[in-house]
Amino acid sequence: MRATVLHAPHDIRLDDVAAPQLHDDGDAIVRVVAACVCGSDLWPYRGINEISEPMRIGHEFVGVVEQVGAGVSSLNEGDFVIAPFMYSDNTCKLCERGIHTSCVSGGFWGVDDRQGRPVDGGQGELVRVPLADGTLVSTAQPDEAMVPHLLTLSDVFPTGHHAAMLAGVQPGSTVAVVGDGAVGLSAVLAAKRLGAGRIVAMSRHDDRQQLAREFGADEIVATRGKEGAAEVREMLDGIGADHVLECVGTEQSMAQAMQCARPGGRIGFVGVPHGVEVDVRGMFYRNLGIAGGVAPARAYIEELLPDVLSGAVSPGRVFDQTLPLDRVADGYRAMDERTAIKSLLTL
Amino acid sequence: MRATVLHAPHDIRLDDVAAPQLHDDGDAIVRVVAACVCGSDLWPYRGINEISEPMRIGHEFVGVVEQVGAGVSSLNEGDFVIAPFMYSDNTCKLCERGIHTSCVSGGFWGVDDRQGRPVDGGQGELVRVPLADGTLVSTAQPDEAMVPHLLTLSDVFPTGHHAAMLAGVQPGSTVAVVGDGAVGLSAVLAAKRLGAGRIVAMSRHDDRQQLAREFGADEIVATRGKEGAAEVREMLDGIGADHVLECVGTEQSMAQAMQCARPGGRIGFVGVPHGVEVDVRGMFYRNLGIAGGVAPARAYIEELLPDVLSGAVSPGRVFDQTLPLDRVADGYRAMDERTAIKSLLTL
Repeated sequence: MRATVLHAPHDIRLDDVAAPQLHDDGDAIVRVVAACVCGSDLWPYRGINEISEPMRIGHEFVGVVEQVGAGVSSLNEGDFVIAPFMYSDNTCKLCERGIHTSCVSGGFWGVDDRQGRPVDGGQGELVRVPLADGTLVSTAQPDEAMVPHLLTLSDVFPTGHHAAMLAGVQPGSTVAVVGDGAVGLSAVLAAKRLGAGRIVAMSRHDDRQQLAREFGADEIVATRGKEGAAEVREMLDGIGADHVLECVGTEQSMAQAMQCARPGGRIGFVGVPHGVEVDVRGMFYRNLGIAGGVAPARAYIEELLPDVLSGAVSPGRVFDQTLPLDRVADGYRAMDERTAIKSLLTL
Repeated sequence: MRATVLHAPHDIRLDDVAAPQLHDDGDAIVRVVAACVCGSDLWPYRGINEISEPMRIGHEFVGVVEQVGAGVSSLNEGDFVIAPFMYSDNTCKLCERGIHTSCVSGGFWGVDDRQGRPVDGGQGELVRVPLADGTLVSTAQPDEAMVPHLLTLSDVFPTGHHAAMLAGVQPGSTVAVVGDGAVGLSAVLAAKRLGAGRIVAMSRHDDRQQLAREFGADEIVATRGKEGAAEVREMLDGIGADHVLECVGTEQSMAQAMQCARPGGRIGFVGVPHGVEVDVRGMFYRNLGIAGGVAPARAYIEELLPDVLSGAVSPGRVFDQTLPLDRVADGYRAMDERTAIKSLLTL
């Protein structure tokens, strides 16, 4: 089968690789229908995360169950399924508490499992899914137009939703969103869905500002840094946002997020932190809270799915580029050069 | 009148000072009935916070209204009142959101107000209270045995409660408390009052362990640091606490608190941070959240007061030393040397 392999920084290829096999009774093999490129895939692509050997990549996909192990009880061949961006058993003490990304048996796509057996990346034709009953969420076969929206449930929409949950967005509350990538835009949509009273999106790009408005932003602030944060505070009762959703992961973006928050405000951060430090004493005097993490997409899919299927939300609009899988390298390049917000790969 | 003045590190005296006067229509003068020494008073006492000139001190007191300005509408001479540890208008946008410690008009006891006029410290005979309608909470004249419990509503009990609120303690959830000072013990009591299912108190001192148990701790861990945190995790489902209440404020105590938390856990911190740094990336991979701050005691007094008056909680048990005001220096010494948990001063 064909699967995406990152060989070296900026050297990404669709290679012929061994087709996956069932290893455990709980495994399933899924034929991928659509996958996509994540902002976090760009860290190794850019060489910021070291690549010691060619690596399989991709962690967002939807597809059709092709084969199931003898122990799989909730899935059948032919089921259309959504794969969250990590696999998990959905039964352990941490999954029970909704932290599926810390599942005691779980793991990442594209990395060997705990028994040292290969698990495929999501940007390929077939994927072995460990813990299939716990991991996959099935839904009726969608029409083609619905596929991108369902695909966002793998990662980007639940990640935006996680930012809003971490920050505690409430009906009527005020929200500022730092970051206008696909996650930041999804965070705007998630905050709106949760009933936020006023949403300020921080963005300098016309196309992203436009989508932020369509997703529910009431105001756009194009200025960055301290000055941008001052504009946000001025817009929000002169005191700042009740909740700030930090969707970038840099020192600057976190500082900006803190400056946007009102005293007593809460910051949810979902961008993988790179070199971020926080002023704990400054937090103390302003009664701030920060909470961040790898979004437990699996915990949220069942809650978000009905609103996606009904069309109440259209999170798939973050995809502004669609390519066949054999042009995966173009998808990475476009996201690296920020000419695309997010690239969808069809199979 | 007589009031406590800190002249230099470890040089604290009861001096004769000018009696306060009404400066604003909204002022009241309160005759102090009981005051106390706070762990945070020890920072300047020990010289860790610099003392450039003799300073008035004390921020926890209850007393009787002696005089009110023409604009005071909710208080009368003779009312028994509880003073939260900062004054505030109780009407601004930040007070409305329950962050009275960030009140746009508020301030600290013992420091000149925004107009440069003196505000007395709480460890003295009389105190000018700015914004008296917003600041003071009156209650029926208590009997003598109730006074210590009411006095804790100035600071220490609401501060413990704040730690629990910041960490989001829920009925049935698991809680670890780092710090066995008066605030840590109050946090145990607050977590119990909020319905925590299991509470682990970390303490190495017999008397404090005993009070922690009486306040609601189910388990005591006497070991500190990584090893102590490992014991806590083992006790709590092998994964750690849903909520950790950090009541010290040092680098070590914060690290210990983080290590006690389960993935997805929340840490509330109410000890003034001194040199605390947090591992933001580590937080991200474990989905942790931290929130801290100066407790808005004023926001909580009305909620906590009925349970204090009914005897449902007895927070005044943190006072294990009672002295007349003229022995205030002995109270500081006892708390500095940790021979007292908390010293109450009677007038």
